[in-house]
This record gives sequence, C-alpha cells and structure tokens, in this order.
Amino acid sequence: MRATLKQVAEATNLSVTTVSQVLNNRSCRVSKENRERILDTAKKMKYRPNQVAVGLVKGSTNTIGLVISDIRNVFFSSLAKGVEDECQRHNWNVILCNSNDRHAKDMQNLRMLVDKGVSGIILGMASESTGEMVQECIDFLENEDMPYILADRYIENRQVGIVCVDHVRGGYLAADHLLKIGHRTIACVTGPLNLYDSQQRLEGYRKALEEYGVPYNPDLIVEGKYTFESGEQGIECLFQKGYQIDAVFFFNDMMAIGAMKWLQARGIRIPEDLSVVGYDDIFVDEFLSVPLTTIRQPVEQLGCAAAKQLIERKKGDAKKDERITFAPELIERKSVIACEHP
Amino acid sequence: MRATLKQVAEATNLSVTTVSQVLNNRSCRVSKENRERILDTAKKMKYRPNQVAVGLVKGSTNTIGLVISDIRNVFFSSLAKGVEDECQRHNWNVILCNSNDRHAKDMQNLRMLVDKGVSGIILGMASESTGEMVQECIDFLENEDMPYILADRYIENRQVGIVCVDHVRGGYLAADHLLKIGHRTIACVTGPLNLYDSQQRLEGYRKALEEYGVPYNPDLIVEGKYTFESGEQGIECLFQKGYQIDAVFFFNDMMAIGAMKWLQARGIRIPEDLSVVGYDDIFVDEFLSVPLTTIRQPVEQLGCAAAKQLIERKKGDAKKDERITFAPELIERKSVIACEHP
Repeated sequence: MRATLKQVAEATNLSVTTVSQVLNNRSCRVSKENRERILDTAKKMKYRPNQVAVGLVKGSTNTIGLVISDIRNVFFSSLAKGVEDECQRHNWNVILCNSNDRHAKDMQNLRMLVDKGVSGIILGMASESTGEMVQECIDFLENEDMPYILADRYIENRQVGIVCVDHVRGGYLAADHLLKIGHRTIACVTGPLNLYDSQQRLEGYRKALEEYGVPYNPDLIVEGKYTFESGEQGIECLFQKGYQIDAVFFFNDMMAIGAMKWLQARGIRIPEDLSVVGYDDIFVDEFLSVPLTTIRQPVEQLGCAAAKQLIERKKGDAKKDERITFAPELIERKSVIACEHP
Repeated sequence: MRATLKQVAEATNLSVTTVSQVLNNRSCRVSKENRERILDTAKKMKYRPNQVAVGLVKGSTNTIGLVISDIRNVFFSSLAKGVEDECQRHNWNVILCNSNDRHAKDMQNLRMLVDKGVSGIILGMASESTGEMVQECIDFLENEDMPYILADRYIENRQVGIVCVDHVRGGYLAADHLLKIGHRTIACVTGPLNLYDSQQRLEGYRKALEEYGVPYNPDLIVEGKYTFESGEQGIECLFQKGYQIDAVFFFNDMMAIGAMKWLQARGIRIPEDLSVVGYDDIFVDEFLSVPLTTIRQPVEQLGCAAAKQLIERKKGDAKKDERITFAPELIERKSVIACEHP
C-alpha cells in the first residue's frame, strides 16, 4: 500500500505539516537538506498524493457514484452505460455499486461512497424499499450534503432531483394497445408495489381500462419483483387462479422473459394462446424466440441526463430539485395478436 | 460535504492533533471545555471519521475494486454478481469500474481505485490491451503493492494471480462438436487476437481440426471485438469472402447474437443454412429465436473465486501467484445440425 504523508513524516522525523508543504510544493521555510530528505524518502516509500484527500481539500474528486439495484438486469447496465458516456465526455469517473435489491446494502453503499468522497450519487434504489426506506436514503444524503439524483425511482413531497420516465403513460400505452385489438381480460405482473414507478404503470393500465369501460379486477394483478425468476412465479400464480386470460402485461422485460420460459415448457404458445407485453426494451427483446412487444424506456438517455445534472450542479448551473421526465414508446413485435372474442 | 478534522480544528482554533485525539476518543490532556467545544463543533459541522483514512491506518477498507471491460456484455454482469456474492458473505464491499474496452480508461480506473484505498483489485482488462498495455497495468499494480487478480485474462512469464477458464479446451469442444457431425468448412469470428484468451480458443479449434485431418485455413478466421456489433461485422466479412461455409464458431455469445440479427435480416436460416456455436452461455441463450449452442463458462464461480482469493490473501492465507482454472462445457441447443457432405 502507498505510504501516507504521516508515514513519510514518521520516517523522516519531521512534522506532517512540513512534509505536506514540501510534497505539495507549497512555499515554506524548510531547509534544503530536509526538503531533499523528504523527497527522497517519499520516493522510496512510494508516496503519491491521496486523490481523496486532494478531493476533500479541493471539494471534489470528480467521481460519480452510481448505486443500482440489480446488476443482472440489462436495464441497469444500459443505465450505467449512459452515465459513463456522459462522464467520459467531462472526464469524470464513475464507480458503481450494486444493492442486490437490499435496502441495507443501499445504505452501506451510500455510506461507503460518501466516505470515499465522491462528488455526487445517482441512486437507483433497491426494489424492496418501502417509503420509510426511501426516506432513510434521502435523509442520509441530505444530512451529508451529498448531491444526488434518483434514477427511475420517485418520491412524493420531497424536493429532490429525479430523472425518470412517465410510467403512467407507459402503463397506458401497453394496456391501450391490447384493448384496441380486442383483449378484455388483461392480467398484470407488476413490479414491487411499494415502488412508485410500479404504482404508476398500474395507474396507466387502470386509466386505459376505464376508457374502454372494462372493469378493473384486482384478482388479475400479481406482484412481481422485476427479476427473471419472479416472472416465472408470476405467470404460474396467474394460471393457478384459473381465469381465462387474453393477455399479460409484465412491468419489465426480465419478468416477461422468465414467463416465456415457463409458458414454453408447458406448450402454451405466444401469442396464439396468450399475448404478452413487456416493459423496458432491453437489447435481447428482438432476438427472443418470440420477439417481444414492449414499452421502450430511453434508459441510456436517462443515465446521461442524471450524470449531466450532477456535473452541472457541481458547476452551480442546475437546480437541486429538477425533475427530468422522458416519454416511453410502444414497440410492436410478435408477442401480441388481436383477440377475437366470441 | 462532511467536515474534515482539519476544518473542525480551524473552526475551534485548536490543533488537528488535539481535535483528532478527542474525536477518536484517545486519552490526551485536553481541557473539559475544549473537549466539549470540539465535540459540539464536530456535530454541528457534520464531522464523521473518514473511512478511507481509517482504512489507511488500519491497512484496509475491505473493499474490492472490480474493473471490467464492457458493462453491456452479460458475461461481465455475471462476473460482478459472483464477486459480490462472495464479498457479501465476508461483509466486504465491491466497487465496479468499466473501461469500455479502453486501456487508458483501465489505467485511470486503477489509479482511482488505488487512491480510494481499496484492499484489492480484480482486473478484467480492456480487450484492446496489447502485451505492453497488460504489462503497464501489472507494473502499476505491483509498484503500488496492490493485491490484484486477473479475471479471464492471461499473461505469460509473470507471477500473477489469475482466475480463468481453460479456453484451449473450450475452443476444442466447439470445433470437435462441429467436426464430429460432418462440418468441414468451419469459420471463426474470434475475439481480439492480442488477448491470450482469444488466442487460446483459436489454439483449441486448430487442435481439433488437426485431429480430424482438416487443414487450417487462415482465410476463415475473422477477428472480432467481443461486442454485439462486431458479430454483425464479422459474419458480413465472412460472407463477402465468398466461401461455402458450413458453420461459424463465435468466440463469445454477444457476437453470435449480433450475427443472428444479420443472418435473419437476409433470410439465412440457422441451423439449416449455417450452424452457429457461441461461447459463454449467457442467460438469454436459451430464449433466442434459435436457442444457441455454446460453450459454458462458469462465470459466477470465476467471480467468486477471484474475490475469495483476494480476501484470503488479505488474511495471509493465499499465494500471490495462484492460478485457478475452470473447465468449460459444451451446451447443445438448436443452432447446430449435422452437415451432410455430398
């Protein structure tokens, strides 16, 4: 490990202040002899200025900490790509931490990032986070005066910076597409319903039903976890209920892909026996055995915008509580067909 | 931003040493009045001990830095998952950096991680890295006395810790599978040929050809970059050469998926018109329009093993230059059929 100022001071029997002044090239009254001894010792001990310390003095290390909830979800690797591309343009660094969807891990990661002196944090909170947990994250960051932006996670009644997608619109687009071509019994496998983005997709779905005069049936709603496995479990749960379902709207693509596995194993055909709509538009959607109809989120743009906000805030150019909302888009592929009701 | 010891010292007009002793609860001769003033000021200024500094003193922050080359490649998110699971078990942190396959970014990330005081680094080098660039990374880490492990990247003639897969075996398995069922004109879209892991797959492929008495034709070898896009480009390049190809072995799955897109757009059927073998076994392979026959790498295990090595080395239990090699495995799906030569 690299020697610290303190270790160089101990080795030379000089004060930390003196050593610091010499190694940081600040004018000071140090004898030529001592100066040479310090420089020599520092070199031998592999002293290099600690960027964190430098950052603390200058008020910056120009590093963004990105906290994501599930690194296996392609959504988050696209988000990270967007953050990195923007940081690259401004010569900032990115360090990334994964919570595995655990709030305790979010808190641990936030503490570590603050301690490592990052300049700002983009937080995609663990999907298990309840309102209280979200508050805890935000309170911690506010208390540390750490600039931050919530990525695709909302919170009401707090003035925070947010980059997000209009998920009410997204949910509406998915349900409207199915209703328009005759589907009436449309089930949902949602994300965690403690999450605002999941609640919003559901709100959009209900809005569309209402417009078509289709009654909302809570029995057709199954709560998922945005993971591949919870897609398999969600579709199984729906089939066990015994309804004659026309279509299923999965609140993300990973769950839709999980459900495809379950359906294919049982010889249930998509879209002939069941129409499926996903959400995200991850890169694999078009290469699946049944290319997935989905709602596209401009994820890389979302990441770019979040990074840009933090960089601008650093320069004093951006407001702390700006919300940037992107519009989702319906992408039609092969997993949906018209429903001919008798 | 959190106040530093120095700032608390300035605010109280007391020395850093005195403030440090009080805040770190070390016995010292400080008046009750000063002690209270320090504690009071520290609280108001939101002083918290700097974990990095604490880490430097204790010799550890128990954080692993993981440097990967392409965050969009599912291979690396699986690797990260393995590293994190192992770290979670030992209550270590992980921070992840992406190089976007640029050596300069690798160096920048390594410097940042060293400066942020991580306990060890797992390095999956940028795929553009030449022998010299690999040396530069290793020289830097050695010079910093930073414990590190190369993940799925080899280097000869250096005593370094490595976790990897036997890619000679992997390349052999892919080619042997195709040769066994009659294929003779087998093209390759390799990874960057400056990389040892890519060279090794090619060596395995040649070994299999030799066993079947099939001459090696360098014209059937196209160099890719392990990215989705380079798969599209690779297959296009092969078709432009005008050979009658039986099968293509892609040195990773992302390139095979890219090629599928190109082939499907031109109505070329897999496997009827062309057999395709990939490498990695990423989770989407089984859900593709043509489920991909591939060589499985136990990537999560690789990540686990790398983290475990660093953690054990910290405890003094592991050798610095240990190599852990995992065996690859052929996974047969639907992208290959027997070739009936006239």
